[in-house]
Amino acid sequence: MHLGYDFQMIYYNYDQFKNDISRLGTLCESFKPDTIVAVARGGMTLAHALCMHLDVRNIQSIRCESYDGDEQRISLTIVGESTFLPSERILVVDDIVDSGQTLHALLPLLQSNNPDVVFKTASLFTKPTALVQPDFSLYEATDWIDFFWERDFLKSNLL
Amino acid sequence: MHLGYDFQMIYYNYDQFKNDISRLGTLCESFKPDTIVAVARGGMTLAHALCMHLDVRNIQSIRCESYDGDEQRISLTIVGESTFLPSERILVVDDIVDSGQTLHALLPLLQSNNPDVVFKTASLFTKPTALVQPDFSLYEATDWIDFFWERDFLKSNLL
Repeated sequence: MHLGYDFQMIYYNYDQFKNDISRLGTLCESFKPDTIVAVARGGMTLAHALCMHLDVRNIQSIRCESYDGDEQRISLTIVGESTFLPSERILVVDDIVDSGQTLHALLPLLQSNNPDVVFKTASLFTKPTALVQPDFSLYEATDWIDFFWERDFLKSNLL
Repeated sequence: MHLGYDFQMIYYNYDQFKNDISRLGTLCESFKPDTIVAVARGGMTLAHALCMHLDVRNIQSIRCESYDGDEQRISLTIVGESTFLPSERILVVDDIVDSGQTLHALLPLLQSNNPDVVFKTASLFTKPTALVQPDFSLYEATDWIDFFWERDFLKSNLL
């Protein structure tokens, strides 16, 4: 696939993911989350795997709809937010933190709605230029990451 | 693993899942869901994969907490329910429909809270004795299914 830019498309396969869950899980372990929140869609499979690794029963997803207004500001609508219990420890999980705009808008909103809750964030990949750097992350994203869940289930790849 | 019963433990691996998404996706395609709802935790990875296959952007999770009361009745608490738009078509997804008690309690509740919404259900495996038979399902579950997300990320399997 030629994108006309000087970066590579990296296919991130299931076997690599399986190994990485152990490493990312170890990083997150000391936080002892009560609930894992997946940022949909990208964070769903990762959140599920981390829940199994960390033995966290509570998992939920959150979906952020961003709209670019006239002034290029991000207006965020959260779909699926729950009220957390006071003093809960919540791990917010996304596959890649790219611009960081989602977490940058989402975290203050979650925190102000749930002032007694402790939020931390985890991702597999993070861009060094992201507005928010997650608390736990494995890789610096320099190339375009093609996660297996973005490729393996597409109709064109299954026929 | 010996459980003392006359059934087998079947390991359901990632490669089989990848192939099955195409087959289950084809079954669900005619329904044209607007939103996919994952029954957490088991349905999370499946819902993510189906979303990618069916090109559905809206995904959310729902978590059901069941309590056995004195009379062995199921009291269900839904965590993470959203309000759907009128006339939306919602596909509720779980990995396996075993006793069917979760869907049996969940579906009437979702339908009464969202009378104009069309709900259908999908799973990979279904027990013939389940209280609710999903609209779309691939396999009859006769053995104990050990899904890759229940095995591959456990600490004991990663060391």
